[in-house]
Amino acid sequence: MEEAIAAADTAWLLAAFAAVSLMVPGLAMFYGGMVSAKNTLNMAMMTFGAFAVVGILWVLFGYSAVLGDSIGGLGILGDPLEALGLGSLLEAPADPGLPPALVAGFQLLFAGITVALISGAVADRMKFGAWMVFAGIWATLVYFPVAHWVFAFDSEDGSVVGGWIANTLAAVDFAGGTAVHVNAGVAALALVLVLGKRRVFPAAPRPHSLPLTMLGAGILFFGWFGFNGGSALAAGNSAAVVVLNTVAAACAGICAWLLVEKLREGHATSLGASSGLIAALVGITPACGAVSPIGALIIGAAAGALCCLAVSIKFRLGYDDSLDVVGIHLVGGVLGTLLIGFLADPAAPNGVAGLFYGGGLDLLWRQAVAVAAVVGYCFVVTWLIAKLLDKTMGLRVHEDSETEGLDVSVHGESAYVMEHAPLGGPPTTGSEAVDAAEAMTASAVDGPTMAAPKA
Amino acid sequence: MEEAIAAADTAWLLAAFAAVSLMVPGLAMFYGGMVSAKNTLNMAMMTFGAFAVVGILWVLFGYSAVLGDSIGGLGILGDPLEALGLGSLLEAPADPGLPPALVAGFQLLFAGITVALISGAVADRMKFGAWMVFAGIWATLVYFPVAHWVFAFDSEDGSVVGGWIANTLAAVDFAGGTAVHVNAGVAALALVLVLGKRRVFPAAPRPHSLPLTMLGAGILFFGWFGFNGGSALAAGNSAAVVVLNTVAAACAGICAWLLVEKLREGHATSLGASSGLIAALVGITPACGAVSPIGALIIGAAAGALCCLAVSIKFRLGYDDSLDVVGIHLVGGVLGTLLIGFLADPAAPNGVAGLFYGGGLDLLWRQAVAVAAVVGYCFVVTWLIAKLLDKTMGLRVHEDSETEGLDVSVHGESAYVMEHAPLGGPPTTGSEAVDAAEAMTASAVDGPTMAAPKA
Amino acid sequence: MEEAIAAADTAWLLAAFAAVSLMVPGLAMFYGGMVSAKNTLNMAMMTFGAFAVVGILWVLFGYSAVLGDSIGGLGILGDPLEALGLGSLLEAPADPGLPPALVAGFQLLFAGITVALISGAVADRMKFGAWMVFAGIWATLVYFPVAHWVFAFDSEDGSVVGGWIANTLAAVDFAGGTAVHVNAGVAALALVLVLGKRRVFPAAPRPHSLPLTMLGAGILFFGWFGFNGGSALAAGNSAAVVVLNTVAAACAGICAWLLVEKLREGHATSLGASSGLIAALVGITPACGAVSPIGALIIGAAAGALCCLAVSIKFRLGYDDSLDVVGIHLVGGVLGTLLIGFLADPAAPNGVAGLFYGGGLDLLWRQAVAVAAVVGYCFVVTWLIAKLLDKTMGLRVHEDSETEGLDVSVHGESAYVMEHAPLGGPPTTGSEAVDAAEAMTASAVDGPTMAAPKA
Repeated sequence: MEEAIAAADTAWLLAAFAAVSLMVPGLAMFYGGMVSAKNTLNMAMMTFGAFAVVGILWVLFGYSAVLGDSIGGLGILGDPLEALGLGSLLEAPADPGLPPALVAGFQLLFAGITVALISGAVADRMKFGAWMVFAGIWATLVYFPVAHWVFAFDSEDGSVVGGWIANTLAAVDFAGGTAVHVNAGVAALALVLVLGKRRVFPAAPRPHSLPLTMLGAGILFFGWFGFNGGSALAAGNSAAVVVLNTVAAACAGICAWLLVEKLREGHATSLGASSGLIAALVGITPACGAVSPIGALIIGAAAGALCCLAVSIKFRLGYDDSLDVVGIHLVGGVLGTLLIGFLADPAAPNGVAGLFYGGGLDLLWRQAVAVAAVVGYCFVVTWLIAKLLDKTMGLRVHEDSETEGLDVSVHGESAYVMEHAPLGGPPTTGSEAVDAAEAMTASAVDGPTMAAPKA
Repeated sequence: MEEAIAAADTAWLLAAFAAVSLMVPGLAMFYGGMVSAKNTLNMAMMTFGAFAVVGILWVLFGYSAVLGDSIGGLGILGDPLEALGLGSLLEAPADPGLPPALVAGFQLLFAGITVALISGAVADRMKFGAWMVFAGIWATLVYFPVAHWVFAFDSEDGSVVGGWIANTLAAVDFAGGTAVHVNAGVAALALVLVLGKRRVFPAAPRPHSLPLTMLGAGILFFGWFGFNGGSALAAGNSAAVVVLNTVAAACAGICAWLLVEKLREGHATSLGASSGLIAALVGITPACGAVSPIGALIIGAAAGALCCLAVSIKFRLGYDDSLDVVGIHLVGGVLGTLLIGFLADPAAPNGVAGLFYGGGLDLLWRQAVAVAAVVGYCFVVTWLIAKLLDKTMGLRVHEDSETEGLDVSVHGESAYVMEHAPLGGPPTTGSEAVDAAEAMTASAVDGPTMAAPKA
Repeated sequence: MEEAIAAADTAWLLAAFAAVSLMVPGLAMFYGGMVSAKNTLNMAMMTFGAFAVVGILWVLFGYSAVLGDSIGGLGILGDPLEALGLGSLLEAPADPGLPPALVAGFQLLFAGITVALISGAVADRMKFGAWMVFAGIWATLVYFPVAHWVFAFDSEDGSVVGGWIANTLAAVDFAGGTAVHVNAGVAALALVLVLGKRRVFPAAPRPHSLPLTMLGAGILFFGWFGFNGGSALAAGNSAAVVVLNTVAAACAGICAWLLVEKLREGHATSLGASSGLIAALVGITPACGAVSPIGALIIGAAAGALCCLAVSIKFRLGYDDSLDVVGIHLVGGVLGTLLIGFLADPAAPNGVAGLFYGGGLDLLWRQAVAVAAVVGYCFVVTWLIAKLLDKTMGLRVHEDSETEGLDVSVHGESAYVMEHAPLGGPPTTGSEAVDAAEAMTASAVDGPTMAAPKA
């Protein structure tokens, strides 16, 4: 019986794993569509690249740092040497349960995607090499500890000690409102404060492909059901309530953002629908197991409306959070985490009561402490990492490169070649990419066409 | 044992739910690619917007109206107050079984997608606000009752009474040939008869991005396995046969459409491959649990071939079903629903025999009555809703807006900005969207470029 | 108990089936983005078309040829008449287990995708009709036998005899390194040797949409978890290890390719990230159940680095493998299959030891024989099929068609219509496609615009 239920839970977590994996190209397209055509590949590459680096670190020691037994039982960091290389996860557990390799794989995706989220803030101006190094260091020094705080639960028999937010503080964060969204949002803020604004800021290039952004948002919507629903770690009623709450919030978020922008600016936009969708998904992430469907509608609507207002703060305060990682992930993540303190319904899977359900302020302060801890730790450490990299390898591309666009100048490619390019003779070496890059660079300098003859 | 099987069924339905959720961007891209570049965002927004509105209504009262105990035991409409707000679905059922919250979430997606399907018919000319209102009213007055008729089965102990088509008539509709496809197709016809033709009809803009349409079709293909396979509500042999039949029909539909158009018009097109795929998927939707794989090949081929012929009827009859919702969803849906009467194989999961398997005409007339009832009810009520909205808020954009394209005129955006836009000074307010919209509008009027300086 | 576990396994295989189905549009976009805009629909159509043809043949006799009882017990080919039309798979098995209809559906996807993989090599110059005929014949004469060798295991009670590589040779190929990737790669080589080079070779058009290619690569990444993980045929520890190894390899492959190309050519490209991702996924496909996560990192990195070097071999040897099917699927597939002989960890699901784990050379020679057998058989038969088709119907489009692009000349369509096309009067027939095609052809000849008035 227990073995069969473990198999069912495994079936769902495998499917959820797959769904979350599609968030990698989903995020790349969501961000890639929002920048100008000359920076779209760089944007997508930051997602793919960060994911790849973090995935490798995860296998080497990240899993252990997050889900290993807490060093000294302090709840600060898992023992990074516990399952070095994950070779010890090959065998099935003695007692029926989820295969540890699957939990490791599922959480690998969380780590990779969280780091990739940050890239939206640094669009159009960051060195790709510096981004890759930042991704690895930030995952190690910020994400791994914070994920340990939030995602590592003490084992039932007490033999394994988890993180302090999950256990000592007992704040509610079902799928990563703090560890994922608040964390990425704060890191984005700290990083852009060191990196500086784009040269054109506060003007901004218009999104070069809103269909790509809508597609990306829609793919993220899909992946989120794996993200939130898989976090139940079981194929049962909890996951069911979670996906229902998630879709309810998403619907409310779209409508709320569209209404607010229609009232403020006269148009209901596709960028607004996409942003409202993501804002609501961010907001419901910590809360999806703690509230009723009506609560989910409220959180989704609140996140859609508030983030719609929040994305213009950057113009007032003067930081260049290019694709609104702060405005959506930080604001939406904080909002959702705190609203649990009000809206948590004891009949929901988390089984805790917020202020409106007779729970008093007990839950609310725990939520607030969790948010404050992640904000504080993440901001300070991220800022230090950014400063260190800025002083050593430099964070920022040359201004010519920023003007020309990072796709050509950094990656030697153009996203689109829409004309029928005339074709020249054979390449003198087998190295296509260099030739193509040179041709493209020439083209980008010489004229308006995006297509170029191949030398 | 029962508990473990319920967990396995839950695992599959969770995965199927996720798969169906990807149909939202899939449909948006499928439709968005088929219109001209100046209307593509509007097209995608009709899918996202309708989905969001219907999702909210579903949580509030739609679930109850569809799956609640039939009012007066008549099989016409579920009690919309039964599970108002879905708070009563938070807890797991006492007896092992699918979590009600999951069934509610799964069926929410069906409702949202069915309404979104209609939008293909009204491309390029409908007010976005009117569409959103239409979506909410149509879901309430048409989809919810019809889905009750078709999807609400009596409970085994008779304590809950379901819909008349599912129970009294006992027509076979595994995953929504009538409630989803015939319903959406008929609604599309009624709505465009009131809305009127595009000004350029019977000419039509060429699809602006066939890769986007093929991608959308492919995503719908993926989602359909969740749609049809999930409708088995169990991880067993029924779902297995259903997905096998679904993929078999899809393959046959592609080949049939390509063959017919190659013979008639000399080219096998990518629009034909995409359309044949969708037509076959529509045709197999009601039949996927009732026929053998050979029957599925026949239904897929018949749907591909017949719909290929049917999409030109609009030119003869003079209604502007822009993206062929009638030609594919109504024709394919009716075809698939009726062919069950001939091809139903008693060895298939539904366990009923059609005319060719010795079942006589008994099944066929039930299928015909189901189709006729949905066609009749849906047409009349949709026409009345459309007339009401046309007289009050107006259904149609101003003709200048239609000429300019709805993306700029309605949503204040352009789908693509492919040039490197020169960038101006800071926005005077934080409101980016208005500025961008004004710049774009200016640009669209002033010249051929799609990129514009930001004021 | 067994029944409940079978239900859980079914739940996962249903989800895996769905995930793999998304590889169809994923591959179409991956390839479609890499060619020039005038050939992108043709590229996508080769995937959709081959999949459709092979799917039909699979239902008719392919399943039986692959998974039927081996003719004469020889392990060469299953009995193609055993389950003709698959009507015999409608009923659930007497003993608890996976529904045969689901295994049939899952393996249908493998067959269709394998054939579609080949199309990358013949970009821009092959007749669509000849491709469709080739797909059907190649599936029948090459894929079905080879898949029988590799995927058909003897039944436990010995009543059903499977293929010789899986049973007699006992080589390890978890998810199709030989039957899928080596097979498709060798077929690509044989086919292009008969088909000949593009007229512009060794120059090559630049990819017209790298975002489309990255999206396609990302979708394939997602589908691969269904492909590899589903091949465990159970929701247990094996599938868990498989998906962990698969994602680990993918991360390493991206990094390795980017590093190699950065060192060699100065740029880390998005085409490189996409290619490294796919190369690593190919490499880990046979090995995903046989190695540890560290082994997976090694295989992924080796595949990324080696394939990055291998894709330029075609320029030295002078065959036009347009989108590097040989360089990635053949090289990556051979590499992964052979590396099992070194890296197989007995603690992994396959439970076998490679050279580095004390297993000596026993496994390595089996792996080498499996590769050699597939390479030899596939090359000879594919070459003969290609020659036969070339002599009869002809493989290659007219050179004018190649210059003009296959989208317009073969399919009568253009991928993109980005201008606002002026619109003319009504079509004289209902046949839209012909008119559109004529207009487009005219346009393509007359001028640079991709949009054209509709006659």
